[in-house]
Amino acid sequence: MLWEVQQMYSIGDKIRVTIFGQSHAEAIGTVIDGLPAGMEINMDKISRFMQRRMPGKNRYSTARKESDVPEIISGVVNGKTCGAPVCAVIKNSDTKSGDYDNLRYVPRPGHADYAAYMKYGGNNDIRGGGQFSGRMTAPLCFAGAVCMQLLEEKGISIGAHIERIHGVCDERFDAVKVSAEQLKIISGKEFPVISDEISEKMKAEIEKARMDCDSVGGIIECAVVGLEPGAGGALFSGMEGAISKAIFAIPAVKGIEFGAGFEASEMYGSENNDSFYFDGDTVKTTANNHGGILGGISSGMPVIFRAAIKPTPSIAKEQQSVDLRTKTAEMLTVKGRHDPCIVPRAVPCVEAAAAIAIINILGE
Amino acid sequence: MLWEVQQMYSIGDKIRVTIFGQSHAEAIGTVIDGLPAGMEINMDKISRFMQRRMPGKNRYSTARKESDVPEIISGVVNGKTCGAPVCAVIKNSDTKSGDYDNLRYVPRPGHADYAAYMKYGGNNDIRGGGQFSGRMTAPLCFAGAVCMQLLEEKGISIGAHIERIHGVCDERFDAVKVSAEQLKIISGKEFPVISDEISEKMKAEIEKARMDCDSVGGIIECAVVGLEPGAGGALFSGMEGAISKAIFAIPAVKGIEFGAGFEASEMYGSENNDSFYFDGDTVKTTANNHGGILGGISSGMPVIFRAAIKPTPSIAKEQQSVDLRTKTAEMLTVKGRHDPCIVPRAVPCVEAAAAIAIINILGE
Amino acid sequence: MLWEVQQMYSIGDKIRVTIFGQSHAEAIGTVIDGLPAGMEINMDKISRFMQRRMPGKNRYSTARKESDVPEIISGVVNGKTCGAPVCAVIKNSDTKSGDYDNLRYVPRPGHADYAAYMKYGGNNDIRGGGQFSGRMTAPLCFAGAVCMQLLEEKGISIGAHIERIHGVCDERFDAVKVSAEQLKIISGKEFPVISDEISEKMKAEIEKARMDCDSVGGIIECAVVGLEPGAGGALFSGMEGAISKAIFAIPAVKGIEFGAGFEASEMYGSENNDSFYFDGDTVKTTANNHGGILGGISSGMPVIFRAAIKPTPSIAKEQQSVDLRTKTAEMLTVKGRHDPCIVPRAVPCVEAAAAIAIINILGE
Amino acid sequence: MLWEVQQMYSIGDKIRVTIFGQSHAEAIGTVIDGLPAGMEINMDKISRFMQRRMPGKNRYSTARKESDVPEIISGVVNGKTCGAPVCAVIKNSDTKSGDYDNLRYVPRPGHADYAAYMKYGGNNDIRGGGQFSGRMTAPLCFAGAVCMQLLEEKGISIGAHIERIHGVCDERFDAVKVSAEQLKIISGKEFPVISDEISEKMKAEIEKARMDCDSVGGIIECAVVGLEPGAGGALFSGMEGAISKAIFAIPAVKGIEFGAGFEASEMYGSENNDSFYFDGDTVKTTANNHGGILGGISSGMPVIFRAAIKPTPSIAKEQQSVDLRTKTAEMLTVKGRHDPCIVPRAVPCVEAAAAIAIINILGE
Repeated sequence: MLWEVQQMYSIGDKIRVTIFGQSHAEAIGTVIDGLPAGMEINMDKISRFMQRRMPGKNRYSTARKESDVPEIISGVVNGKTCGAPVCAVIKNSDTKSGDYDNLRYVPRPGHADYAAYMKYGGNNDIRGGGQFSGRMTAPLCFAGAVCMQLLEEKGISIGAHIERIHGVCDERFDAVKVSAEQLKIISGKEFPVISDEISEKMKAEIEKARMDCDSVGGIIECAVVGLEPGAGGALFSGMEGAISKAIFAIPAVKGIEFGAGFEASEMYGSENNDSFYFDGDTVKTTANNHGGILGGISSGMPVIFRAAIKPTPSIAKEQQSVDLRTKTAEMLTVKGRHDPCIVPRAVPCVEAAAAIAIINILGE
Repeated sequence: MLWEVQQMYSIGDKIRVTIFGQSHAEAIGTVIDGLPAGMEINMDKISRFMQRRMPGKNRYSTARKESDVPEIISGVVNGKTCGAPVCAVIKNSDTKSGDYDNLRYVPRPGHADYAAYMKYGGNNDIRGGGQFSGRMTAPLCFAGAVCMQLLEEKGISIGAHIERIHGVCDERFDAVKVSAEQLKIISGKEFPVISDEISEKMKAEIEKARMDCDSVGGIIECAVVGLEPGAGGALFSGMEGAISKAIFAIPAVKGIEFGAGFEASEMYGSENNDSFYFDGDTVKTTANNHGGILGGISSGMPVIFRAAIKPTPSIAKEQQSVDLRTKTAEMLTVKGRHDPCIVPRAVPCVEAAAAIAIINILGE
Repeated sequence: MLWEVQQMYSIGDKIRVTIFGQSHAEAIGTVIDGLPAGMEINMDKISRFMQRRMPGKNRYSTARKESDVPEIISGVVNGKTCGAPVCAVIKNSDTKSGDYDNLRYVPRPGHADYAAYMKYGGNNDIRGGGQFSGRMTAPLCFAGAVCMQLLEEKGISIGAHIERIHGVCDERFDAVKVSAEQLKIISGKEFPVISDEISEKMKAEIEKARMDCDSVGGIIECAVVGLEPGAGGALFSGMEGAISKAIFAIPAVKGIEFGAGFEASEMYGSENNDSFYFDGDTVKTTANNHGGILGGISSGMPVIFRAAIKPTPSIAKEQQSVDLRTKTAEMLTVKGRHDPCIVPRAVPCVEAAAAIAIINILGE
Repeated sequence: MLWEVQQMYSIGDKIRVTIFGQSHAEAIGTVIDGLPAGMEINMDKISRFMQRRMPGKNRYSTARKESDVPEIISGVVNGKTCGAPVCAVIKNSDTKSGDYDNLRYVPRPGHADYAAYMKYGGNNDIRGGGQFSGRMTAPLCFAGAVCMQLLEEKGISIGAHIERIHGVCDERFDAVKVSAEQLKIISGKEFPVISDEISEKMKAEIEKARMDCDSVGGIIECAVVGLEPGAGGALFSGMEGAISKAIFAIPAVKGIEFGAGFEASEMYGSENNDSFYFDGDTVKTTANNHGGILGGISSGMPVIFRAAIKPTPSIAKEQQSVDLRTKTAEMLTVKGRHDPCIVPRAVPCVEAAAAIAIINILGE
């Protein structure tokens, strides 16, 4: 029996977010510890935020909506935080656990099944993917929305868009000029891209994958604007590390890059270095290859990062697996309705994870 | 006066590594807390490891060698750990602090200077880049080498190579077949690549940059072999997040990807999912797009990741900056001898950071 | 607005226990993170344990019993832990929040009211004492009972008794001979003392206080047996510090001492030092003034400590207070039914807190 | 081989203090992480503070003085903190490790020897008590002195006195009226008591113990004045728990109590509750049985606590022990010069530990 790693399901030393639950447990939820007392929790805003990640919000928006309504059971009195931890619970009403026992021994390719089986000695909750389910991003989004409210009070906005899906690319943020207004506009879109004309092409890629019983992934680009210079720090306190740790908590993320990122490896120093200039009393850089982070510390320029999202591992196509009991090969068909592309729904998750990371980086 | 962020200079809940010092302080060093007692510290091995990151080890290997010799001042008795934290100190003997005061107010593009100025209200140690200097990776390598020793006792090997420099690419690891033996061979190379024939081309890129008073960056690929399935966990305990946090502690890293990484965003799920099969009693996957990590947990396949290294920001070319006092534009020429490419020296740093992350992920 | 302190409502790096809720919130509860997977949660045992702290369990045992039934909403599948955090929720069904607004501005002497008002700028949940209520020990006991189950699997038993109430003393544990069997017997008692003859005298003290509209406190003595030598450590990792931190989480605890404790200040070194001898292959000490802890590390002898419990601050007597709005003196009478002595109910809380501390101290 | 506990040698999430070294290692020292940048380190004040714990400062003040001079090797530039961790090293120049091997197998009663042997499998540094030595309080005092400087800038003073030695009692602090001025006066005394007339009696007790080849302990009382109401919090964030954890890091502490402490167990609630009144605009209490802490939160009244110090375990009298190799009884005489009472030297250690705890409790 392997002993668990420390701090598994919590993040943050200042605003500590703990997430609990499994896909088909009675509930999932989050405990947010360290919020200032007297903060008004804007449930409307939180609901709107959480709806952006809800399943089937455009075409199939009825059936499962109720199941994602968070209920605050502690920490809030008359709409304001009281200093005790805020616990929000989301009931898992629409669970059909069915015959998951087969799955226990025939792990789905691309899923956590096999790795979790080994970690937990077969005791993990296999129903709906257990704590590895994308469903766990619902409490993440709740916690992120609360943190985002705190950030907004400090003039900091976070917004993301689909940078590409299966090779079809949106334009990128203008890393110098991206503004809170632009982020707000994008977050209001049903399909969050900068160039709306690209959305149909992206949707066509998704639809094609669905028709092929397959799935596609993509890249999400996120911007943080309004962050004063001076947040973060050297070595293990760097912003990149803190943001990465939070972003990789989202299932399906397999890469992250800041500013020019991997492309910086193709540039000369003289190209990659961003020149300083004074815009009034404020120091800015002419370009923003550094993605708003220098030496792990915010520079005052927009923080820009991109996260790679792998194609949904659940596909209707038959796949090769094994039976862990009999040690034989086994063909597997993953049943049920699955998103052929989770990138659109992952957009608010990226924003939420970034918000949790950044509120914990801030100095004051 | 901004208050500092928590846990700035330490990482790990199990083997906690704290790094202290600045480039031109009297010393830099590390405290490693939580090592098992009775462990023999192999100083020869550690020295060899640290020499891989030493400045000028090939052509200019004499002058500064001494300054990187770590002195263990606590925690080790007769060559064995005694249970008290191991503190290793590296004296900064060869510091020429000179006239850094100019630099304080004219920040170098691509460096932490401006961001640190804002964070610390101008109190940061500007000499040699202070705690933002690449020199801080010397104690990181010491700590990593100690962790690597622990990992090796458990049959886990870590090794990296230069995957590309300024667009010139080495072949990648065979993500399925990469072995401890291969990693050992590469780590013994003066220029750590898989295909030795590529090394001259890479060196030519570096030399060209040097001649142009410029610099180049690249990508480092790292493999961890021998890791049992079951390490890591869901959400905030995932391996990707833990490794990223450590890797981004290395100055100049601007991106990281695991397995297929950003390329997964171009693939269909049916391409990206790795099929399971039994190799004797061991479950393996036919390909390794998942980079040895499923659901944040090790799958037993090699862990594969790549880190993007930006071009050295210190270049001899004149650059545009500002004077923070006068709020005017100012041209800047960074003096001194600087590596036109730090990618080769960053290879052991990536291994060291990975070792620190992984020893803290292990279950037992 | 004061910013909250880190790690407020959680403890433990290995088995992390987070407690949430307020006395009159919708619910109180706990998230236990880091439990090994596959552990059978013995709900009967947990219920029996929690009943020991239930209000009015002897004479008034009906009315509020239901409200303390914990409901596990995550982390347990078919009675076994699955590796995800265990979240248990206790509904606050029997809350009569009534007119607490008066209390907000007229703080009760001996309570957290005034201090919390200042900390939270008046936003704290004043109903029933909010998160400062003794009610918060219900989830503490749940978490402690789960940890105790883990400890028992390792042969470690924890048990406490009322050492004194308002000057009426029980005998103390024989610090050398106290056994798991003795602890089990005491925990089964309706009034947990060693010498049953003393219980009537203690009850008489409580009754007298009740008749006088007053309250009394006492001392609880706790023993941990079966702990192998070698747990804990020097400096900040000492057992005394870890146990103290947990025990002081119980409202009303104002002191703690280990082994001879404060009496050691009256002894000569030659009296206080415990001689070693071999009992078969096991090293023991002839006396146990060190309370089973030497240099912060378990010696293998029973761990013995005593916690001082102040008299219940809620008394029916009229008391002098102030009105925080008018800045005038104000007489206050605390209404409602209150325990004239919480020492008996605090006994399992002490055991629970000790269990949480000790499971986090253990090496493996 | 037991695995070490997490966070062994560090404390604090805001100002993190890590202590390293062993009594006879090359050095002992501390890393202080999280200090604000630009803070002037007053080395004179720190030296004066550390001299209060120096061995033999009154009668035998020559020989070992040099060995306790801390050398700051990082984090300070031109006398000011630069934002990087402050590392201070104290060389162990005067070590005579001699024949400690005998001690390894014949543990000294009252010392950590046996427990450490079991924890570390015999690998612990037995020379001079290793990391369990009272010598480790030298870096503790350094770190405490730095924290105290920060506290003083906020108007917070900490001071302690010898409340009793072997039954000879000083008067106690007036828990309501104790002032920064009084604390300053006491800290300037060669023998820190309130009533100077008692000091000769205490010294006589110590001298008597010395003549008898024995030792005595005592109680130290500490006051913190100037702390605003609102620091600390409920449950695991309580001030008592945080202070206790730090105080128990001092070897030889076996108990702690706040305010009325254990005596509260003899009082009625109506006696123990402290009435509120307005002193101008400030809420105060008429008495201070609560020791300045209500519900784990500072009330604005002086924080008062007492720590029990056991008699020095090193005594010249022959004692009964065992030989761990032969499993036979063995008589032991502890050689060397030892303090017959460490209470006077522990006074600044208590202040230092309290300072570290309190700086980490403060909200801002």
